Amino acid sequence: MNVPIDPVALTQALIAADSVTPARGTVFDVLEAALLPIGFAVDRFVVGEAPDGPVENLLAVRGDGPRHLAFAGHVDVVPAGEGWSGSPWSGEVRGGLLYGRGAVDMKGAVAAFVAAASRSNAQRDGGTLSLIITGDEEGPATYGTVALMERMAARGIVPDLCLVGEPTSTTRLGDMVKIGRRGSVNIWIDVPGRQGHVAYPHLADNPIPRLVEILAEIEAVILDKGTDWFQPSNIEVTDIAVGNPAHNVIPAKASARLSIRFNDRHRGADLIERLRAIAAKHDPRAIVTGKVSGEAFLTEPGAFSTLLSEAILSSTGITPELSTTGGTSDARFLSKLCPVVEFGLINATMHKVDEAVAVEDLLALTDIYEDVIVRALN
Amino acid sequence: MNVPIDPVALTQALIAADSVTPARGTVFDVLEAALLPIGFAVDRFVVGEAPDGPVENLLAVRGDGPRHLAFAGHVDVVPAGEGWSGSPWSGEVRGGLLYGRGAVDMKGAVAAFVAAASRSNAQRDGGTLSLIITGDEEGPATYGTVALMERMAARGIVPDLCLVGEPTSTTRLGDMVKIGRRGSVNIWIDVPGRQGHVAYPHLADNPIPRLVEILAEIEAVILDKGTDWFQPSNIEVTDIAVGNPAHNVIPAKASARLSIRFNDRHRGADLIERLRAIAAKHDPRAIVTGKVSGEAFLTEPGAFSTLLSEAILSSTGITPELSTTGGTSDARFLSKLCPVVEFGLINATMHKVDEAVAVEDLLALTDIYEDVIVRALN
Repeated sequence: MNVPIDPVALTQALIAADSVTPARGTVFDVLEAALLPIGFAVDRFVVGEAPDGPVENLLAVRGDGPRHLAFAGHVDVVPAGEGWSGSPWSGEVRGGLLYGRGAVDMKGAVAAFVAAASRSNAQRDGGTLSLIITGDEEGPATYGTVALMERMAARGIVPDLCLVGEPTSTTRLGDMVKIGRRGSVNIWIDVPGRQGHVAYPHLADNPIPRLVEILAEIEAVILDKGTDWFQPSNIEVTDIAVGNPAHNVIPAKASARLSIRFNDRHRGADLIERLRAIAAKHDPRAIVTGKVSGEAFLTEPGAFSTLLSEAILSSTGITPELSTTGGTSDARFLSKLCPVVEFGLINATMHKVDEAVAVEDLLALTDIYEDVIVRALN
Repeated sequence: MNVPIDPVALTQALIAADSVTPARGTVFDVLEAALLPIGFAVDRFVVGEAPDGPVENLLAVRGDGPRHLAFAGHVDVVPAGEGWSGSPWSGEVRGGLLYGRGAVDMKGAVAAFVAAASRSNAQRDGGTLSLIITGDEEGPATYGTVALMERMAARGIVPDLCLVGEPTSTTRLGDMVKIGRRGSVNIWIDVPGRQGHVAYPHLADNPIPRLVEILAEIEAVILDKGTDWFQPSNIEVTDIAVGNPAHNVIPAKASARLSIRFNDRHRGADLIERLRAIAAKHDPRAIVTGKVSGEAFLTEPGAFSTLLSEAILSSTGITPELSTTGGTSDARFLSKLCPVVEFGLINATMHKVDEAVAVEDLLALTDIYEDVIVRALN
């Protein structure tokens, strides 16, 4: 049995190590100093070039038993911003709340998991526990979790289950677990034309009517009606730009930008192709480009979510909602490895001024994570 | 009989009096000095305040017989711009061409008409000849021809026919007469919405789909199929602006700008109302505003155009096309007074570098204008 780590003190130490994205150095020193005494082998590495790097990452493994639970998270934070009632890096506790940038997103959860691991004897029963911790989740994430997964592949490390500690709770700790995320793709449509004077439209070629036709057809598309676990996929036109300052001039080009959030019925590349086909019907010269920021994934409710739900119920008395709402997270990458679920603190103050976690939530989350470790590895 | 005025020398004198819009002073002095010796009573006045004024205008009348022909034009010019092969204000003749800003638009035509009037005895037969000359046709035109018409109304001056000397010829002097002009209206459509995150579309209200619906319906509108004398009226969407820099944000507003060129089947205000009704069907909160820059007018082919065509045929051997194409002109105002037709020099170089008129065209135009005066007043 290890000396138990205090999740509150460790959260404070992690917050004090100011680590606005991308995180490097001190905050990883703090984490490593906590992990080594409780038996983890720590592998820190720096990867990537400007502009998206360099980024520091940490991979920690304890035990070598066949059942393998991974915890994934990040120690970088978004900038503090102005207007805090105290220092964003103090971690001070007032009225039962621990304040600081990263308190809920997600140094608190990292500390809770390390504290849970310090109490756990699970690996004595033949399990493996690992931490997959990146210094770039809030930034471009080019050299973050993706680089960690490459490192794991090179080392032959393959978890059976992965718990992501993002703040998924909404109003009470334990009210929501994420079992999937929608995918996200941004698409640009550029329609060319030929400039001219509005008095002589036959000498010009206005691209706007064709762009309007394309967008009208796209607006009528119903991608799906939702699934048991996902909302319907949704297309939003987020911008149209022509940039024509002259009242009497027919413009030479017209462009639109769209954002699609989609469920596991779709793949980003297929959606780009689908919109490209619609555009081509109205203008074969239209140029459609797309960038997939993440594919949808779903960890079907089953043994892993049940195990987590039981641990949450046992500590909080709440049965969590299994949800797929919200933006993307690094779970979109990790889902390629093994079943992934996400559970962490209340997200109400994340990215905001006076980000804070209730001390009692930090303690309860530590209990839940400990329970998950025990249930997963036995 | 007056001493005949040389149209070439008078064109050069008018060009030398640099009169970038709005014109005041010297160029009117030159014109007045030509008109007084040939029997015109000259009424010059300055009107208007900044930003659209002050503007100088000139009203000249000779004779008091019952048949009254007016000639309308302007002595202001657009800026010279860079790159002339000589001085834009020299009026020099090279290779049979007289160069200078305003040579064709339209100091040449003003000089030709004054020269024609200097040769004419028509008023001895009981006619009235007048010149309606503004210093602001190329600018906002707020205090130009409109102010001249108010002056004429106050003085009880009502012509029977009005010839506007704008450069209507296209490739050969005499190939085109304008018997009407399309109207022009600019329209703005603003659709409000509510900003939000693309991951939570139910919490936002994207205005773009409604703007696309509105524009799609407008694009399907056929205002008319043209008339005997007019092209079909035409709607162009000239700009769409959303101005949303963020990929993951649903925008709070979306706007479009349209330009309609319309024939005499329509009035500008009715077109604004029609588009307002279409917009309201898709979004009652859409705001539609419009600005009518000119109503359409038509001087039905008849005695006046026949008289002008015969004079052109007699001098040039060409039967002019009667057209209503092109942009607006001050004829849109004058058409409220009496039948208006437009005829002048070749417009190929107007508003361009090295604007120039062929000396032989200037002489031929003087002959045609003299013929028109004789035919109109007898």
